[in-house]
Amino acid sequence: MNSITEKFLHMISDYKEMWNSSYYIREDGGCAGTQSTKNVSLKPIPGGGGLEIKVEPGTKGENIYIPACVTHGNMDDIVHNDFYIGEDADVTIVAGCGVHNDDHEDARHNGIHRFFLAKGAKVRYEEKHVGSGETDGKKIIDPVTDVFLEENAVMQMDTIQIGGVDKTIRRTNAELKKGAKLIIHESILTEHEQTAETEFHVDMQEPDSTVDLVSRSVAKDESYQNYHSVIKGNTRCTGHSECDAILMGNGKVNASPELFAGDIDASLIHEAAIGKIAGEQIIKLRTLGLTEEEAEAKIIEGFLTGYQM
Amino acid sequence: MNSITEKFLHMISDYKEMWNSSYYIREDGGCAGTQSTKNVSLKPIPGGGGLEIKVEPGTKGENIYIPACVTHGNMDDIVHNDFYIGEDADVTIVAGCGVHNDDHEDARHNGIHRFFLAKGAKVRYEEKHVGSGETDGKKIIDPVTDVFLEENAVMQMDTIQIGGVDKTIRRTNAELKKGAKLIIHESILTEHEQTAETEFHVDMQEPDSTVDLVSRSVAKDESYQNYHSVIKGNTRCTGHSECDAILMGNGKVNASPELFAGDIDASLIHEAAIGKIAGEQIIKLRTLGLTEEEAEAKIIEGFLTGYQM
Repeated sequence: MNSITEKFLHMISDYKEMWNSSYYIREDGGCAGTQSTKNVSLKPIPGGGGLEIKVEPGTKGENIYIPACVTHGNMDDIVHNDFYIGEDADVTIVAGCGVHNDDHEDARHNGIHRFFLAKGAKVRYEEKHVGSGETDGKKIIDPVTDVFLEENAVMQMDTIQIGGVDKTIRRTNAELKKGAKLIIHESILTEHEQTAETEFHVDMQEPDSTVDLVSRSVAKDESYQNYHSVIKGNTRCTGHSECDAILMGNGKVNASPELFAGDIDASLIHEAAIGKIAGEQIIKLRTLGLTEEEAEAKIIEGFLTGYQM
Repeated sequence: MNSITEKFLHMISDYKEMWNSSYYIREDGGCAGTQSTKNVSLKPIPGGGGLEIKVEPGTKGENIYIPACVTHGNMDDIVHNDFYIGEDADVTIVAGCGVHNDDHEDARHNGIHRFFLAKGAKVRYEEKHVGSGETDGKKIIDPVTDVFLEENAVMQMDTIQIGGVDKTIRRTNAELKKGAKLIIHESILTEHEQTAETEFHVDMQEPDSTVDLVSRSVAKDESYQNYHSVIKGNTRCTGHSECDAILMGNGKVNASPELFAGDIDASLIHEAAIGKIAGEQIIKLRTLGLTEEEAEAKIIEGFLTGYQM
């Protein structure tokens, strides 16, 4: 792998020297290293368009790393990864994405991930997005995540965009069967002229399904973020969504969370708050010796990452 | 006026025998009585299409009644009323609407109201909507309310739809200047196959403007309600919106409140909750001797009207 990919792996995938587990490193559309294990097979789809990842039923505690990096401009990388998680498996999938661009043409990564969780399966999915490079070539990351949860399956998605991404459109769709649970924590930082668009669509189709959706945004400088979520409950179910945003400079945020209750036993709640950092918080940290900039940075960091477990 | 109109006036306009104030009773597109006062003039627009209502600057404590009734089917009544409220005036406007239909053709009232509040003016606007009649002819009420608030003007809208309206599309738009304040309390009850659609669009354009929007819905039987609000803050301003809904039977509700913050000093908050009546509440009232139906009715009544001042 090249040095840019290696740098990204440290940032997005807890990379030390190599992982002692299954992995597939995608670099500029090619493969820069892969390994399967007894319980986890990563099989390239013919043509290089992505992977078929299979986790055997009952597999416990394994990590699966599938980072994707784009390291130069004039690149539009699209990958389709399908994850089949066997019954009662319990695994962690780390799927960070880094896009570096030193050129004048755009560099884009578009990861289309489908998760099929069998009965009782549990997945923790971590996704860190980052961009780097100082030219006018844009760094673009457009992930699509489709989640299908069978009976009592549980998926927790922790996604964070930590900076440097010029443009992102994030789409997440989920269908929940009986007793299934989806937890999503999303944090997005935009600065300069960056834009971020987020679209969630969660459909609770069978009784006792649950969704908990927490989105945190920081919009700095001239950046803009647009958030839209739809939670549909056509059954006995529980839905909670929360979107909080901090404005800095000339940042702008539009938040539009939608709840649809089509059953008397659907219980749906939403909260949203948009505003700037409270003055008292800055003052408190300054009395501890921080400059105003340091205090702001501390608050932003806590806001974006503090609730992630 | 006919007996249906008179019945409606008791329901929607605190009518006893006659009002000792300015009024205009609209019945099936015609006039069933009107009166102006020294400070409040109600002038019909030529052609019967509505009224120009002028309130002199500094007018305090007057009530203005402008009920509108449709008393039979095959009627599509559209009225344009413009309200010009002078500086520092403080008045109450009662604008109920009743639609009765014993026929097989639809009966519809469409009131288009524009409010121009001058500096420091205060208006309390009350709007009660009700339908009656047992035939298959629909009772339809489609109000459009446009509110323009100059510096430090305050408008409080209390609107309630208490039943019998088959279909309603309610559109409310507001533009707020410096220090202006808009308070909206909306309550809608739908039952049977009724549908209600609500659209709010509030634009806070100048510093220190405030909006507080509270919507309460009860969707019974097979009825459906759709709520969409947009609160825009492009300045130092405060916005709060809250939409709560109770489901009964096969009632369905879609709530989609939108917040746009385009200024670091815009502070916007939203809350929403959809669900059925909590079992404990029913049990508590039943221990006081109420039947389950009486307990439910009590809770619904409190929910829809309790917060209205």
